[in-house]
Amino acid sequence: MKKVLVITYDKVDDSELMYPLYRLEEAGFEYDVCSLEKKTIHAKIFVTAEATLLPEETDTSVYDALYLPGGSAPEKLRQNARIKEIAREFVRDGKPVCAICHGPLILISAGLVKGRKATCYAGVRDDLINAGAIYSDEAVVTDGCLITSRHPKDLPAMMKAFVAAINAK
Amino acid sequence: MKKVLVITYDKVDDSELMYPLYRLEEAGFEYDVCSLEKKTIHAKIFVTAEATLLPEETDTSVYDALYLPGGSAPEKLRQNARIKEIAREFVRDGKPVCAICHGPLILISAGLVKGRKATCYAGVRDDLINAGAIYSDEAVVTDGCLITSRHPKDLPAMMKAFVAAINAK
Repeated sequence: MKKVLVITYDKVDDSELMYPLYRLEEAGFEYDVCSLEKKTIHAKIFVTAEATLLPEETDTSVYDALYLPGGSAPEKLRQNARIKEIAREFVRDGKPVCAICHGPLILISAGLVKGRKATCYAGVRDDLINAGAIYSDEAVVTDGCLITSRHPKDLPAMMKAFVAAINAK
Repeated sequence: MKKVLVITYDKVDDSELMYPLYRLEEAGFEYDVCSLEKKTIHAKIFVTAEATLLPEETDTSVYDALYLPGGSAPEKLRQNARIKEIAREFVRDGKPVCAICHGPLILISAGLVKGRKATCYAGVRDDLINAGAIYSDEAVVTDGCLITSRHPKDLPAMMKAFVAAINAK
């Protein structure tokens, strides 16, 4: 069974946590939530998820894909060295890496966007561009194993692309 | 393009509105939201949807399926004669009818559950049974064109069945 690693923290966007986690389950995939603490993660409004894994104990070789939701969580997560390394390992291994909204901030800090086509929340678009990405204002932008989206309304297009990419591996 | 009718109102469950509407969009289906007023529908916590259609102006012949989310909305909706008739028209025409949580209350009032295998939220299970349904405590119960589920955690199983039923028509 395919297995997806989700890295997030408190104040993640509710929709960006709820829709993808249900959707991965519907697709028949397993997932683990990795965070800065092992605890119940509380999204901004009401959605929750159980974080069962710390970055330093995460072995990326057992996962088929990585999902990075947005909200305020990525600004905390991008400061963690092991999380940046995890993102680089997925890209190095050619496994799908999907990030939405503020999620691409982690890809910026991991040095993964230079020369790559990508998108993100409009409020951090300039940071994506300054990091060397080729920004595109589309619902979903795919460049190799990188899949990025802008905001919750893009979730249907994003998950269609992400599920297909996981199934294609 | 396949088209789904969604009947709901204020105080619908957030998850039961968000996941299915995004999921229908991901599947490439269109949908219209029918309600007691043409306005922005506010789920219990924060999810919204635009109701553009009143029951009395709804022509079921242009739709391929019906979705009835739960929350507090169905207790209001089940009192509307045209909404009950709409549900009966979908069943008469053999089109998929999907209801979750308190959504099956509308099917009870429409006289559609007698002798049919179905499920619902545990708090109204006795009403489903008293209406003559064969209750089953499963994530998703399918009996002919009727697809029912218990609560938000069943959404992945429910939408897998519902999307497949719509595509099979």
